Amino acid sequence: METLQQLSQYVSDQIAALKYPASMGGLKTQAAYALGAGGKHLRPVMTIATCMALGGTKTQALNQALGVEIFHNFTLVHDDVMDKSDTRRGKPTVWAKWDETSAILSGDAMLTLANMYVARSAGERLERVLDLFNTAAMEVYAGQELDMQFEDRLDVTTSEYLHMILLKTAALIRCACGLGVIMAGGDDATLEAMKAYAVGIGMAFQLRDDYLDTYGDAATFGKPIGGDILNDKKTWFLTSVLESDEADNIKAIISDKSLAPDAKIAAVKEIYDRLELPGKCTKLVEQYTKMAVMALDDTPMSDENKKFFTDIAESLKTRAI
Amino acid sequence: METLQQLSQYVSDQIAALKYPASMGGLKTQAAYALGAGGKHLRPVMTIATCMALGGTKTQALNQALGVEIFHNFTLVHDDVMDKSDTRRGKPTVWAKWDETSAILSGDAMLTLANMYVARSAGERLERVLDLFNTAAMEVYAGQELDMQFEDRLDVTTSEYLHMILLKTAALIRCACGLGVIMAGGDDATLEAMKAYAVGIGMAFQLRDDYLDTYGDAATFGKPIGGDILNDKKTWFLTSVLESDEADNIKAIISDKSLAPDAKIAAVKEIYDRLELPGKCTKLVEQYTKMAVMALDDTPMSDENKKFFTDIAESLKTRAI
Repeated sequence: METLQQLSQYVSDQIAALKYPASMGGLKTQAAYALGAGGKHLRPVMTIATCMALGGTKTQALNQALGVEIFHNFTLVHDDVMDKSDTRRGKPTVWAKWDETSAILSGDAMLTLANMYVARSAGERLERVLDLFNTAAMEVYAGQELDMQFEDRLDVTTSEYLHMILLKTAALIRCACGLGVIMAGGDDATLEAMKAYAVGIGMAFQLRDDYLDTYGDAATFGKPIGGDILNDKKTWFLTSVLESDEADNIKAIISDKSLAPDAKIAAVKEIYDRLELPGKCTKLVEQYTKMAVMALDDTPMSDENKKFFTDIAESLKTRAI
Repeated sequence: METLQQLSQYVSDQIAALKYPASMGGLKTQAAYALGAGGKHLRPVMTIATCMALGGTKTQALNQALGVEIFHNFTLVHDDVMDKSDTRRGKPTVWAKWDETSAILSGDAMLTLANMYVARSAGERLERVLDLFNTAAMEVYAGQELDMQFEDRLDVTTSEYLHMILLKTAALIRCACGLGVIMAGGDDATLEAMKAYAVGIGMAFQLRDDYLDTYGDAATFGKPIGGDILNDKKTWFLTSVLESDEADNIKAIISDKSLAPDAKIAAVKEIYDRLELPGKCTKLVEQYTKMAVMALDDTPMSDENKKFFTDIAESLKTRAI
């Protein structure tokens, strides 16, 4: 197996060389822009690595890997319209660079392009591939819907929050690994094991993201620290406070529109610290990581390949970017 | 074969009884609302009737028919966001009733739902079904993109316009008929013949729509007459004028913002009439209808079934709603 970095580079090269169908017309401009924005390509790497670790070749699940990555980027294009976010990875978002209608329409075209790639060269596995992919797609939308509904609520529980990120974030990583298993011809037990692994790292990934948004280093993390706090985003931290004795205190801070940004961040962090949430979050990330790593034992992969996936899971615990 | 009305009612009943996947979450509310808005269900009826006329059963292509109808309604949900249209078939559009984010997200979910239905029970025909459907989807987006680009242009030619409606309108009707052929197990020659039939009626349908928007009867047509003229919409009529000696005259009318709506409609219609466009449009509709009907001869269907499709094509020529 190649290294994570090598596989990530391989995916980058494949995306750069992507052939868009002629029927896509001018919408390939926005699609190529959105897909070329960079990123770590975690999901497609997972598809390819899973397939290889189970005896498949590097190209055997390539189309499915690209389909998942195209799908992920389509959701970002539409999410940015819904959230009115004008930059992503330091570049203008599609709606900000063109307009809202271009972003909606090119996102739609990217979803259809994702469907095309996921189906390509799936052969006799096509039906299972589509079932897994379409269900995951629905889960991602349902997760995004919950996330938006949470914006208007101050009674979101941590379990509601965990359910939301299971749908919005973990479901597509689960699909990515699952497609790798199916394309490698893995059995059902292996499919379930790799799905469990993927859910573990997906949850750990998102919780670590919540942590870094408040406790990360701005220079390393690549975006301003405290954004979630300023937006009253219903993260694991905020929902934990809303379930605690400090609920009224944080509601008072949220409703106080006169607070300066820095003062608001400091006041909220004081509550987080009082409840020892940073340590509890790190512990939760560790639990999900452990769950992920344990699931690998139910797969027939070699120790060397288990180490590849274990290293990825472990790196999420301490990642700073 | 049942009558057109019976098949249309059958599709309505099936849509009302549609089972949404649990993974769709709360987004099924908007999807059911959009799908329940009524309409003639021309596309799914075409899929089912084509399948039956070629020896298939009524349910054999039902899932594909529903997939096409769900897809069509998804495009309407997103188009209404892009066009800021707040009513459709006399009811508030999804974005107007909920909000823009709900409309974008539920539209995405409807596209994935369409993919699920199109793939369902396709068996060994799955790959061909998906190829046809995904390509048509791309063409519809590309057509919508062209249509929006035309808004900012005053040099759109009639051939550009015909190319645009081939993509935006005819491609999905072609797909609907094509899916019926594939699910019935028809051969390639029949597939091509039914695609040609569908393109013919698709083009005739859209051109008749352009005609009715200017020359229809408001009470029968169901929307105010002259909307296209007031919006400077690049229809077959306007693009025909832009190619003629009257181009400067119509540009002067378009740039005169002081004209009252009624005066503008009258002035534009005067040009249309001077160029004898109503008669030319009707003739073009007849040509496309004839092309459609002729294609039926290259299919193995019975004379009775050919009459069914011929009647549909002929009815488009004179339809007033």
